[in-house]
Amino acid sequence: MEKSEEKESKQCEDEVSHLALDIGGTLIKMVYFSSSSSSCSTSAQKNGSEKDGIDASSENLNYSFLSGRLHFLKFETKNISECINFISSKHLQHYADVLCSSSLLMDGIISNSYLLRGSVNPGYRDDDALANDKNIIKATGGGAFKFADLFKEKLGIVLDKVDEMSSLVAGANFLLKAVHHEAFTYMDGQKDYVQIDHKDLYPYLLVNVGSGVSMIKVDGDSKFERVSGTSIGGGTFWGMGKLLTKCKSFDELLELSRQGNNKVIDMLVGDIYGGTDYAKIGLTSTTIASSFGKAVSENKELEDYRAEDIARSLLRMISNNIGQIAYLNALRFGLKRIFFGGFFIRGHEYTMDTISVAVNFWSKGEAKALFLRHEGFLGALGAFMSYQKNGITDSTNQLMEQHSSMPKSLFCTGNGFDSSTHADTKDNGYIECKVQIRN
Amino acid sequence: MEKSEEKESKQCEDEVSHLALDIGGTLIKMVYFSSSSSSCSTSAQKNGSEKDGIDASSENLNYSFLSGRLHFLKFETKNISECINFISSKHLQHYADVLCSSSLLMDGIISNSYLLRGSVNPGYRDDDALANDKNIIKATGGGAFKFADLFKEKLGIVLDKVDEMSSLVAGANFLLKAVHHEAFTYMDGQKDYVQIDHKDLYPYLLVNVGSGVSMIKVDGDSKFERVSGTSIGGGTFWGMGKLLTKCKSFDELLELSRQGNNKVIDMLVGDIYGGTDYAKIGLTSTTIASSFGKAVSENKELEDYRAEDIARSLLRMISNNIGQIAYLNALRFGLKRIFFGGFFIRGHEYTMDTISVAVNFWSKGEAKALFLRHEGFLGALGAFMSYQKNGITDSTNQLMEQHSSMPKSLFCTGNGFDSSTHADTKDNGYIECKVQIRN
Repeated sequence: MEKSEEKESKQCEDEVSHLALDIGGTLIKMVYFSSSSSSCSTSAQKNGSEKDGIDASSENLNYSFLSGRLHFLKFETKNISECINFISSKHLQHYADVLCSSSLLMDGIISNSYLLRGSVNPGYRDDDALANDKNIIKATGGGAFKFADLFKEKLGIVLDKVDEMSSLVAGANFLLKAVHHEAFTYMDGQKDYVQIDHKDLYPYLLVNVGSGVSMIKVDGDSKFERVSGTSIGGGTFWGMGKLLTKCKSFDELLELSRQGNNKVIDMLVGDIYGGTDYAKIGLTSTTIASSFGKAVSENKELEDYRAEDIARSLLRMISNNIGQIAYLNALRFGLKRIFFGGFFIRGHEYTMDTISVAVNFWSKGEAKALFLRHEGFLGALGAFMSYQKNGITDSTNQLMEQHSSMPKSLFCTGNGFDSSTHADTKDNGYIECKVQIRN
Repeated sequence: MEKSEEKESKQCEDEVSHLALDIGGTLIKMVYFSSSSSSCSTSAQKNGSEKDGIDASSENLNYSFLSGRLHFLKFETKNISECINFISSKHLQHYADVLCSSSLLMDGIISNSYLLRGSVNPGYRDDDALANDKNIIKATGGGAFKFADLFKEKLGIVLDKVDEMSSLVAGANFLLKAVHHEAFTYMDGQKDYVQIDHKDLYPYLLVNVGSGVSMIKVDGDSKFERVSGTSIGGGTFWGMGKLLTKCKSFDELLELSRQGNNKVIDMLVGDIYGGTDYAKIGLTSTTIASSFGKAVSENKELEDYRAEDIARSLLRMISNNIGQIAYLNALRFGLKRIFFGGFFIRGHEYTMDTISVAVNFWSKGEAKALFLRHEGFLGALGAFMSYQKNGITDSTNQLMEQHSSMPKSLFCTGNGFDSSTHADTKDNGYIECKVQIRN
C-alpha cells in the first residue's frame, strides 16, 4: 500500500463504507469509498438535508448524497494476504455493526443505501443469511472465482462475482462521463486533455492492458462486445522482464526502461539496409524491423546486455504490438477513438508514447490513442458501481436518467469539474464524489 | 551448407549457370540453377533442338528450354564469408569464361540467355563495363545494399538490387502457379495439400516471416501493396530465445520448443479463474491469458525454468501473434487466403499448428492459413526471376502470356506435376524445372 494512501485512510478509518475488488492474474485493484473528513466527525450527529456532507436531492426527496472520496489501491495477487489484512483493518464489519445498531445512522443517511448492502456484520445474521450472499463484496476478475473460498474463510465475506468485461466497460464509462480531465492524448512528451462530449462518446474501443489484453467495442452504457485481445500484455512485460533482467518489481522494470536504448538489441531497418531506409514502403532506417533481432547476430550472452536496454526493447515491443492490434480492431469496426486502460500503462510516458506512435503510424494519423488517468481501476470501479443493481429501486433509475450525463448511482460534483477530481498516479489518486443513497 | 546439398552441388559444379540472393538481417537465402546431371557432361557437345536437356519451343523458335534444377541454400548473415566462399567455389566467373570463349556454348544454348547475364568474367571487361553493372548478381533484402561493397571487393560482382517486396511476391506467385503440391494447410498434425486454381489465386495475403514480418496484399502478378507487418518475428524468436536459453542455433531452439510445455510459464485463463474458463467470451481455461505471465507470480529465476518450456512459450507467443495480425489484415481487405512464408516457419509442425489455430480462432473458421514448401526462398526466387526483365525481349513477354498459368521465364515441367518437384525441408530441397533461354 502506498504511504500517502495509508495516511489518508487513517483519517476516516471507520468511514470506509464500501469496497470493491478486481482480482487479476497479477494485481488486485481495490476501490473503496469513504465519506469526506469533514463529515467523518459530524455525520453521525446530524440528519436530513442539513447533514454535513449530504445534500438532499431537490428532484426526489427519497434520495440524498453522501460526500466523500473514492480511493484506489493495488496489491500483488501473489501477496493476497496483504489485501485481506487491509480489508480486515478497515473494520468493514465493525462499521456495519454501528450501522445496524444505530437508529440515527439508519435514519436516511447510510443504512438502506446500496453502498452498505455488503457490510452487514455476520454476527447479526445466522449462517443461513450468510449462505444467502448477504455478506458480500463485489468482485471481478478471475480471482473473484479463484479466491472466493479464501475470502469466506478469512473474512467471512462472500465475493459477489461481477462479469469482468461488464466491469471494465462500466468503469470506463463512469470515468469518461463523470470525471473531468480523465482522458488525454500523449505524443512527443505532450499531454493534452480531451474533453469528451457525453453525447458523442459511443462507439469506442476500450483496450484494457492487464496481465493480458482485452479489446472491447463499446456501443452504449451496457452495450459492448469483447472483439479481440492478445496474450502479449503487462504480464509478458513483467514476466519476461523479470527473467531477462532479474528486476524485482514492475516499477523497477519501468524505471530501467526509462534509461535504456532499444537500438542496442532491436534490429532496425537501417541495420539490415546498411544505414539507409526502405522509403518505398514507408520504413525509415530507425523503424524496428525485428524486436530483439540484433541478439541473433552478436556474440553476446544475456549478461553482456544492459538491463536498461533489454527493458526498453521489451516495453517498446509490447506497447507497439498492443497499439497495432488495437488499431486494426478499431479500423475493423470504424472506431475513431481508442481508450487504453489497465495497469500496464501506469502513466508511463514512454509506454504511452509508443502506443500513440503505433496507432498514429498504422492509421496514418486517422485514429488516436487516448489514455485514462485512472487507467488501472476500470474493473474495480465497475464492480463498485454494480452495487446499485442490488439496492436501488426503479425510481432511482429514473432519477439517474435525469442526470444522464452522469453514470448511474455515482456522482462526481465539487466546485466545477477541475476541482472535483484529484488524481495522482503516484499514490493512485482519489476522486472526490458524492454517492447517492436512499433515505 | 547442408551436407546433402553439398554432395548434390558437386555433381554439377560447373553447371551453376546462375544465382540470386536474398540477404536478410539474419539469413542469406540463395537460389541457383544448374542444368540437370544428364546434361552436365553433354550439353557442351551438342547444339540446337537436339541438345540434351533442351527442348525447342514449338511456338517460338527463338527460344529453347534448358532442363535443370533450382537449388536452395541458406547461410547466416553474420557468416557472410561462407556465402562468398561458396559463390567463389561455384566458379561462376570461370563458367562465364567458358561461355564467352566458346562459340558452341554461345550458339543458341546458354549465352545471351538472361540467366547468364550476370556471369561474365570481369577479366573480359574493363572497369567501365563493370561500372555499367555488366557483372551482376540479382540480390534482394537489406543486405543487397549493406553488403554491396563487400561483394564487389571479394568477387568483383555488382549486386543488382531488386525490391524486397516485389521479390517476395514474384517468388510466391511462381511457387503457387508453377509448383504442384506447394501449398498446404496444417491442422492437428494433419498436412493437406491444396491445389490452387491459377485463375482464382488473387487476391491473397502474403505473410513473410523473416527476422521481422511483412504482410503484403497481392492482387496480381505485379500488383501488390505492403499493408502491414510486425517487428515480432523470427529474429525475435531466435534473439530472445538465445538470451533466455543460451541455445546456439535457430534449429536448436526449435528442437527445444518441440519438447517443451508452455503452461509452465504462460498464465492461462484457468490460472486466473481458478481452473475454470471464461466461457461467456469464448475463452477456455487453457487459453493463454498472458504469455510469460506466470513468471511474475512465481519466485523463480531464469535458471529455474527449463529451456524447453521457455522455447515453447516463446514460439507460441510469436506464432499466435503473427497469425492474429495476419488475420486482422486479411479481414480488413476481405482476403480469404493467407499464405505464410519466410524462414521462421521452417516446416515446423508446432509453429504451423499455432498459426493455423490463431487464424482459425480469430476468424471463427472463416479464414485459412496456408503454408508453402519453399517458404524461406520467396525473396531469393523472386530476385532470380527478375533477370528476365533485363535480358528478354518483348516477344518473350508475349510468349509468356501464352503460358499465363506459368510464371514468366521459369517453367516447371517434368512428367506431371508430382514428379516435377522434389522438396525436402531438411536439405532445403530443389525444384526440377526448365529454364527458357533465348537462342
